[in-house]
Amino acid sequence: MTKKKEVRIGLIGCGFMGRTHSNGYNRIKNFFPDLEHLPVLKVACSRNEEKAKAFSEQWGYESYETDWKAVIARDDIDAIDICTPNDMHAEISIAAAKAGKMIFCEKPLARTLEESEEMVNAVAESGVKNMVWYNYRRLPAVTLAKHIIESGKLGRIFHYRANFLQDWTINANVKQGGSDWRMDAEVAGSGVTGDLLAHCIDTAMWLNGSIGDVSAVTETFIKERVHQVTGKMEPVGIDDACIFHCHFDNGSLGLFESTRYARGHKAFYTFEINGEKASIRWDLEDLNRLEFFDHSDSSEVRGWRSIHVTDGDQPYMDKWWVPGLSIGYEQSFIHQAADFLESLASGQDFSPNFKDAFDTQKVCEAVLESAASKSWKTTGL
Amino acid sequence: MTKKKEVRIGLIGCGFMGRTHSNGYNRIKNFFPDLEHLPVLKVACSRNEEKAKAFSEQWGYESYETDWKAVIARDDIDAIDICTPNDMHAEISIAAAKAGKMIFCEKPLARTLEESEEMVNAVAESGVKNMVWYNYRRLPAVTLAKHIIESGKLGRIFHYRANFLQDWTINANVKQGGSDWRMDAEVAGSGVTGDLLAHCIDTAMWLNGSIGDVSAVTETFIKERVHQVTGKMEPVGIDDACIFHCHFDNGSLGLFESTRYARGHKAFYTFEINGEKASIRWDLEDLNRLEFFDHSDSSEVRGWRSIHVTDGDQPYMDKWWVPGLSIGYEQSFIHQAADFLESLASGQDFSPNFKDAFDTQKVCEAVLESAASKSWKTTGL
Amino acid sequence: MTKKKEVRIGLIGCGFMGRTHSNGYNRIKNFFPDLEHLPVLKVACSRNEEKAKAFSEQWGYESYETDWKAVIARDDIDAIDICTPNDMHAEISIAAAKAGKMIFCEKPLARTLEESEEMVNAVAESGVKNMVWYNYRRLPAVTLAKHIIESGKLGRIFHYRANFLQDWTINANVKQGGSDWRMDAEVAGSGVTGDLLAHCIDTAMWLNGSIGDVSAVTETFIKERVHQVTGKMEPVGIDDACIFHCHFDNGSLGLFESTRYARGHKAFYTFEINGEKASIRWDLEDLNRLEFFDHSDSSEVRGWRSIHVTDGDQPYMDKWWVPGLSIGYEQSFIHQAADFLESLASGQDFSPNFKDAFDTQKVCEAVLESAASKSWKTTGL
Amino acid sequence: MTKKKEVRIGLIGCGFMGRTHSNGYNRIKNFFPDLEHLPVLKVACSRNEEKAKAFSEQWGYESYETDWKAVIARDDIDAIDICTPNDMHAEISIAAAKAGKMIFCEKPLARTLEESEEMVNAVAESGVKNMVWYNYRRLPAVTLAKHIIESGKLGRIFHYRANFLQDWTINANVKQGGSDWRMDAEVAGSGVTGDLLAHCIDTAMWLNGSIGDVSAVTETFIKERVHQVTGKMEPVGIDDACIFHCHFDNGSLGLFESTRYARGHKAFYTFEINGEKASIRWDLEDLNRLEFFDHSDSSEVRGWRSIHVTDGDQPYMDKWWVPGLSIGYEQSFIHQAADFLESLASGQDFSPNFKDAFDTQKVCEAVLESAASKSWKTTGL
Repeated sequence: MTKKKEVRIGLIGCGFMGRTHSNGYNRIKNFFPDLEHLPVLKVACSRNEEKAKAFSEQWGYESYETDWKAVIARDDIDAIDICTPNDMHAEISIAAAKAGKMIFCEKPLARTLEESEEMVNAVAESGVKNMVWYNYRRLPAVTLAKHIIESGKLGRIFHYRANFLQDWTINANVKQGGSDWRMDAEVAGSGVTGDLLAHCIDTAMWLNGSIGDVSAVTETFIKERVHQVTGKMEPVGIDDACIFHCHFDNGSLGLFESTRYARGHKAFYTFEINGEKASIRWDLEDLNRLEFFDHSDSSEVRGWRSIHVTDGDQPYMDKWWVPGLSIGYEQSFIHQAADFLESLASGQDFSPNFKDAFDTQKVCEAVLESAASKSWKTTGL
Repeated sequence: MTKKKEVRIGLIGCGFMGRTHSNGYNRIKNFFPDLEHLPVLKVACSRNEEKAKAFSEQWGYESYETDWKAVIARDDIDAIDICTPNDMHAEISIAAAKAGKMIFCEKPLARTLEESEEMVNAVAESGVKNMVWYNYRRLPAVTLAKHIIESGKLGRIFHYRANFLQDWTINANVKQGGSDWRMDAEVAGSGVTGDLLAHCIDTAMWLNGSIGDVSAVTETFIKERVHQVTGKMEPVGIDDACIFHCHFDNGSLGLFESTRYARGHKAFYTFEINGEKASIRWDLEDLNRLEFFDHSDSSEVRGWRSIHVTDGDQPYMDKWWVPGLSIGYEQSFIHQAADFLESLASGQDFSPNFKDAFDTQKVCEAVLESAASKSWKTTGL
Repeated sequence: MTKKKEVRIGLIGCGFMGRTHSNGYNRIKNFFPDLEHLPVLKVACSRNEEKAKAFSEQWGYESYETDWKAVIARDDIDAIDICTPNDMHAEISIAAAKAGKMIFCEKPLARTLEESEEMVNAVAESGVKNMVWYNYRRLPAVTLAKHIIESGKLGRIFHYRANFLQDWTINANVKQGGSDWRMDAEVAGSGVTGDLLAHCIDTAMWLNGSIGDVSAVTETFIKERVHQVTGKMEPVGIDDACIFHCHFDNGSLGLFESTRYARGHKAFYTFEINGEKASIRWDLEDLNRLEFFDHSDSSEVRGWRSIHVTDGDQPYMDKWWVPGLSIGYEQSFIHQAADFLESLASGQDFSPNFKDAFDTQKVCEAVLESAASKSWKTTGL
Repeated sequence: MTKKKEVRIGLIGCGFMGRTHSNGYNRIKNFFPDLEHLPVLKVACSRNEEKAKAFSEQWGYESYETDWKAVIARDDIDAIDICTPNDMHAEISIAAAKAGKMIFCEKPLARTLEESEEMVNAVAESGVKNMVWYNYRRLPAVTLAKHIIESGKLGRIFHYRANFLQDWTINANVKQGGSDWRMDAEVAGSGVTGDLLAHCIDTAMWLNGSIGDVSAVTETFIKERVHQVTGKMEPVGIDDACIFHCHFDNGSLGLFESTRYARGHKAFYTFEINGEKASIRWDLEDLNRLEFFDHSDSSEVRGWRSIHVTDGDQPYMDKWWVPGLSIGYEQSFIHQAADFLESLASGQDFSPNFKDAFDTQKVCEAVLESAASKSWKTTGL
């Protein structure tokens, strides 16, 4: 085994996403042993010292900090991984860029288009490597969808539709603010649009190209919730649900829906693409499967194929087990980390980066403006 | 067996829908033997004599005609069943109403809101019994959905979504006009909106109440097609695809999509309803199943139930076979015919009637206007 | 329409199977208008006069009888359809054969191999046309499976497995005898073996050839049930469940299971065939679908195809609706009746006939003997 | 974080199972941080030095060896993990037991009942802790099945059926011996019986109790294959397929099938249990789902529930992500390792251990004897 080049990670934010990213780094060595670069878990940071300490021990970080600026200031850190709530993405990113650190930012890029633009400018000016954790692209079935599209098997695209349905906020006792920051517009920027539709839009533009204009509707079903910090009942500022249709630049129609009020769905993220010659669909809750309909099959025996994407000649699966044996959600992060490390060696651009996430943000912004103004909006893409 | 009261049918239009309706009438006696009324197939009418003759023999009509006005003029006819292309619905209906005949009209009610309004007025003035063949309500799984909703099991409704996807017009060689009248805006009135979304809207308003406003987009992917009658390449006037979101009066968000360009789908009509306490979904291609998620189930064993709606205590199924044995598409017409006949005996209102179909037409009209003007439209309901 | 040759039916037994057959005959004219022969419902027979009268009116029989011998004695009857409990199949068949009538016998052919042999001999001697209602062969998806196999797409066959699972006798209050004759070994001959496995075996030998030897186990979970006729608790003589494995003559292994104690299954009849190059599977509860796995598909996009067998170029479906619209259980009988009538015109042999059903009986007999003796048995095929 | 007690692992065999176990150990610290014991990867052993070195580096072992006896001889090793081909299980286990090491043995326990018995005796005499890697018990959906059964929800059990279908040996070019040792009866002991059915039997007896007697059939479809070591065409000694039915001690019927000749199946391990009141089924290829039919549901809305076993109150899932996000195959090993470590702290017995695996071996032995003698065999359980 040749000596690895180290990418020394400083992780800021020790919540759920901190877990998924840390796990992603930890497993690179076991499953991608041929990479030239290896992540090294240098420091984990949380404002809460107890949490920072426990997290760093659990995940194998060499040290911990309670001030994110201290992390950026350290010389022994190559990359800043931002797992904080959305309201800190811009400030940390810009500081990290100025400090010349690589940046791995959790999605969405920021709360607003303005913040996003500053971030994109910051990394452009400093020239630091950057990526955004739109992780679902790298589930094997989704990557296979990309391969199928690029092979030309679908032909001209007519329709793209996606939804991301959850049900966890139906309960009126769910609060906003504090650890429920996803419910707080000040911190999150938006509701399902930035949290869930952003994923759908990232995948969609990766698979089907740019979105030109959108027409949206949003809804907030529960208008007031107790705020964790103030303890008071306060108006809810986020969108509980968002639906939009749109035109892609390739002439296809798009349809997107997200909600946290779809009883029976936990993480029901699906997409379907209908082309002239074939169609594809996928569902996160059965993430190892891709469904594929090929009109060129003999008509008597034509039907949707349920492809169990677990064979060694399917994307990423040579790294894992044997045919028929499933992988899970976490692999999306491992694959993204591995591909980023690979890009360091190859010198090739990595995507999704800040620029890509900025494009997604443009669509999100147009969606929210469309819903507010009850009119079509162009995305500027 | 007591002597039956006869409902003597004059059927106008010997195409696909003529078949489905005739089959519906023919089977009443075998499967609904207790009804007081029995349909009698008196006359079938087509402009093409050979077709009229063959059809009447095949389906057991006592006679045939080639002029629909002759059918209406006959004294031995109680009910006119209109299975013509859409452009004849209004004229025939109005004439039949004036002649005091019951009217069974194929959907959509007409090409336009104006035509529809005249038809509604005509039946209101004459007082004739009337119904419209929005047949899907009466598939057992759909009726079961209605029962579940009425039982209160869903609670407050947040979302209603439906789509109707086909792929038969992707081929550029499909013509418009003549026997391909569904492709001809002059005859059909619209494309997928009147043909497919009208079904979705009828079911939706039956299950979830009125739709207040809509925001739509339509697309015509293939702009010119050869016209069967003229033999010339002519502009296509219909909508190949239509998507809209909307508000229901009960506060829920609606999402509807239809297209004939979704490769891999033949008659993929699905709906899903998300309530506070439970959700329901259904798919025409697996029409004997209803899926039901009940949040009140114990959390460890909670999941979507796949209900095979074939038991005797489920809607209509006591008329058919034994548990586990499927019925098909055609039963929707048989059930509608039977329920209409039952309403004659009970004196209760039958739905969907012209008034109901007029409401659906209002939504369709708002949808098309919204798409044309790129703005929200109210339905007037 | 040319003048039809009539096949005048005398139906004996007005229960559930009487309904399915009568419906089959009634719909021939509508859906198979080109056949040269047309069934005419001449007489229905039940020992219970009220039942016979009501049944004949409901299904359109011209007359009724209460003595089956009177039916056979009538000159205006061409074909005897036997829908009685199993214990009458032999006597009626033999009498009908002697009278020179065509015979359509409900499955299984008889209670025992001895009875079956006499029946086969009787039709052989008299030379009358005969068929047995192993109806599932003629569901479009099952016939499509036959086409796929005959095309050679599967290659060498390794495995055939089938099961038929129900749950209706779990309740200890279900009785035996009388209308519950399927629970009475005297009348039925056996339990699930003759009632359910016989279907599986008929399909299996049609698709995969003869079965050479078998090793079986049976179980009777509830040992005593009240007898409807005597009113007394009596030992249960039938098999509640039966499992067997076997060798087909083509070298493949077979596996069959049937039970009426599989909670959650009403009519769960499935089969799967694994060949060197492809596999097929089917499920009666979703009868319009055939699943097909073709190993020759490109490996990256290989998967089980769910074929919705509703297109006009798939078996029988040109007779029905349009692509995507389902048919039901009843079509199996209509198709069998139509094919039989077609065979009268073409002069070709019809299958399944008494001889084919005798072969199935041989397997059933070997299965029951194997279970009783706890040893392998050859079928004699 | 309190100081952990170390369990220093010596892993013998650096193949596929070496990977799965090593991954299992590596992730304990991250996902089960509260355990008192922590595995420490001390040494990995392979006869091939290059392989041993690379494997130890990749998986984080502190050292490597090429002689398994050296591993056992080391003082700094607490537990021997046996991942060799089956023919080495007995010798290594017995040596490890004598050396007082804990033993974690890959399944099946051994090639034969005799070997297994010696192993059981060895660990009994030495008193060392032991476990066998029947890992599927600890997939959350399978453990949930166990909970449901233990809750009494199923009532009296009538049927247990399981199969494990693969297709990787259909190709006649697959060899036997060497790295294809699973094809070599000398090394593997048997074919699918020990490799695949052993898994099914372990789960079955865990969920449904002991198996009393069996009746089996086996088949070897390809009779000769080239041997990797000799390079010659040699007779194939393993069973390519095995089917058996059986009686469980609780009175239920069992049905098991395994093959490597089922085209379209990679790792299709399924089981279904039918009880008086409810039924359960599961499929390894969709391992996050458990299907559950509860007859006590209201009859109109009764159906199989598809439970997505990813909520925090379902087995093991509080350790992972959030509801709706899947885990994979590998978690089965992590959970087993964690539970074993927990048993060290609690002092409770761990299962499956050598004794449990010996019971499974008794069933396998009876199955193979039954197939060879074409007669029923008792298992001795």
